[in-house]
Amino acid sequence: MNLSYRSTHTHGSRTARFIPLMKSLRDQGRDVISLAIGEPDMDTPADIIAATQDALSRQETRYSDIAGLPVLREALARRFDGCGPESIVIFNGSKQALYTTFQVICDPGDEVIVPIPCWVSFPEQIALAGGLPVFVPTCDHQLDINAIATAVTDKTRAILVNSPNNPTGAVYPAKTLQQVAKLAMDHNLFLIADEAYDVFVYDSRTPVSLWDFPEVRDRLILIRSFSKHYAMTGFRVGYAVAPPDAAGAMVRIHSQITGNVCTFSQYGALSALQMDEAGLIQQRNHLEQNRNLALECMDDLFPCICPGGAFYLFPDVRGHLQKGETADDFSLRILEKTGVMVAPGTDFGMDGHVRICFAVPEIQLKEAFRRIRSVL
Amino acid sequence: MNLSYRSTHTHGSRTARFIPLMKSLRDQGRDVISLAIGEPDMDTPADIIAATQDALSRQETRYSDIAGLPVLREALARRFDGCGPESIVIFNGSKQALYTTFQVICDPGDEVIVPIPCWVSFPEQIALAGGLPVFVPTCDHQLDINAIATAVTDKTRAILVNSPNNPTGAVYPAKTLQQVAKLAMDHNLFLIADEAYDVFVYDSRTPVSLWDFPEVRDRLILIRSFSKHYAMTGFRVGYAVAPPDAAGAMVRIHSQITGNVCTFSQYGALSALQMDEAGLIQQRNHLEQNRNLALECMDDLFPCICPGGAFYLFPDVRGHLQKGETADDFSLRILEKTGVMVAPGTDFGMDGHVRICFAVPEIQLKEAFRRIRSVL
Repeated sequence: MNLSYRSTHTHGSRTARFIPLMKSLRDQGRDVISLAIGEPDMDTPADIIAATQDALSRQETRYSDIAGLPVLREALARRFDGCGPESIVIFNGSKQALYTTFQVICDPGDEVIVPIPCWVSFPEQIALAGGLPVFVPTCDHQLDINAIATAVTDKTRAILVNSPNNPTGAVYPAKTLQQVAKLAMDHNLFLIADEAYDVFVYDSRTPVSLWDFPEVRDRLILIRSFSKHYAMTGFRVGYAVAPPDAAGAMVRIHSQITGNVCTFSQYGALSALQMDEAGLIQQRNHLEQNRNLALECMDDLFPCICPGGAFYLFPDVRGHLQKGETADDFSLRILEKTGVMVAPGTDFGMDGHVRICFAVPEIQLKEAFRRIRSVL
Repeated sequence: MNLSYRSTHTHGSRTARFIPLMKSLRDQGRDVISLAIGEPDMDTPADIIAATQDALSRQETRYSDIAGLPVLREALARRFDGCGPESIVIFNGSKQALYTTFQVICDPGDEVIVPIPCWVSFPEQIALAGGLPVFVPTCDHQLDINAIATAVTDKTRAILVNSPNNPTGAVYPAKTLQQVAKLAMDHNLFLIADEAYDVFVYDSRTPVSLWDFPEVRDRLILIRSFSKHYAMTGFRVGYAVAPPDAAGAMVRIHSQITGNVCTFSQYGALSALQMDEAGLIQQRNHLEQNRNLALECMDDLFPCICPGGAFYLFPDVRGHLQKGETADDFSLRILEKTGVMVAPGTDFGMDGHVRICFAVPEIQLKEAFRRIRSVL
């Protein structure tokens, strides 16, 4: 039986393939250190676990509002000045918020400007909406505003901005965000801001969001997540902040794709919002220490731009590639020889690099680099 | 800012609109009896609540396999003879399993035969995949095989079969399923079987599934759910059983839409599979009693075909429509005058009827019909 064109032309999430691979290697008795998956190493905080369990005890197990629990949407809206709950939509992770964003803005042939390297799912999600990703290289992992401006055509619908960035950890300064905001206004484009790592910004810098530019809010679809803040990746709760008409369209499409997000999961997310910020600051400080340690361990092994946020290094490994070897081959060689998993840069649209997640225990980070160093 | 064609042409799930409406009326102090939402009236069983809470205590809160927990897929595969776990994919409810099914089989312009009345989301989901729903009327709520055969064109990709049926409660006999199976084989079509209500078949009849016809398994995408069996609608766990290549394509697309289903929710679903069947039989018997009671209460009020399964009546209300009134207007009138919510048949592609969910406590069922009768 033939399948649809889209189903034979969609790649599965490339980073997701590491989850079963890691489990299978561990089942074989290998001592695997995974630096390939974007997950914080902490446990989900006890308060969030308890709140989710309480919701289950209260039988919060039924259909709930498609757009999300009103109490959760209201709590989130209060975090964005001038924003009402009608602008907030809860999704099964920020992945689904992004998928739905492209469904809502792209007609066939519409272009979305995607700075690269980029998160693995952007190109596939844009294609699934009938759109065309237009890749624009970054410059030392920072946005190249001139290159973006040059890439704008009359088919361009949106510019995608992902800061702090996955896979590079780059944080875009306010000035860059202002420039990209102006570009979007000049050409009447949507701005899609993927801010899944929003609070993880280091070196005492204050996080800047595209939300901080009120003049673009009527064209801004901002995506955030509970996954990375509080080690809630398996809860599958993310959200979009969007102009009310776009949010309404997202809800309509959401209602036909999955309906409401798991009801008690959303109560877990609500409790995360009610937690003391101290935990988040502590987690940020912990990650900053890990970043520094990772850079120190790597030292002269690979050149690497110091990431200002998120929890990834994206070093240049070209100096260690064997003849004809890609980052894919390199990652596989490292895995086979050392049991250390890293994510090849090819997955993110940039060969010659690998993504290393440093949100792992210190001892694992040190051991991973010791092993990699021993075979290079 | 303009939105995409699909976002302005997709309707939100019509039955989902009743959830906030019901809550808002109750907040206003109205004594609302909802017979409009497809949810069982029981609590989620304590064992399932406990298993989900245990998974949370064990910190089963991280990313898991995109296709679903291997242990859950294996447990499900064992229920379908000759089926391996590679044929099982876990989704955020059967709604998402169906959405992804259409994504996987439909190219633009492909036709899917949809017997009507039908579940509200089928036409929208088919359109979102670029397909065209081809509606074929049923005959006394049963499939009209000749009409379906006549509707097949060279653009037809699949026939949709939903038994026990939502909204009519019709159960198709084995002979009908065999005829539709033959039709699919003769014309090389997919069969999509929505069996969300599979165990709820009454009058001592044995449920028959399209899975029972091994000759169609290479073209069969079977969709089931945990939602209706065990009052787990808010868990959002459903699944597809599909030929391995179609299942693989579904996983690839799933990995770009949402990633894995909430990890601890899946452990709840696993515990549901491990439960004694006695609970399910008890629930079926309870629903059968409710069906009989509902038919008795309705008596001569509206003509209604006795439903053989699911938990809906789909009576003909045309005898009580005022001049120019649609089933929508009628449902609104009943709601305003009596506080009883029913779902208008127009939502399911058939005016002049309403859908009445009888999975509510006996006392509410009696009171609802008393109130409706008092204003007609």
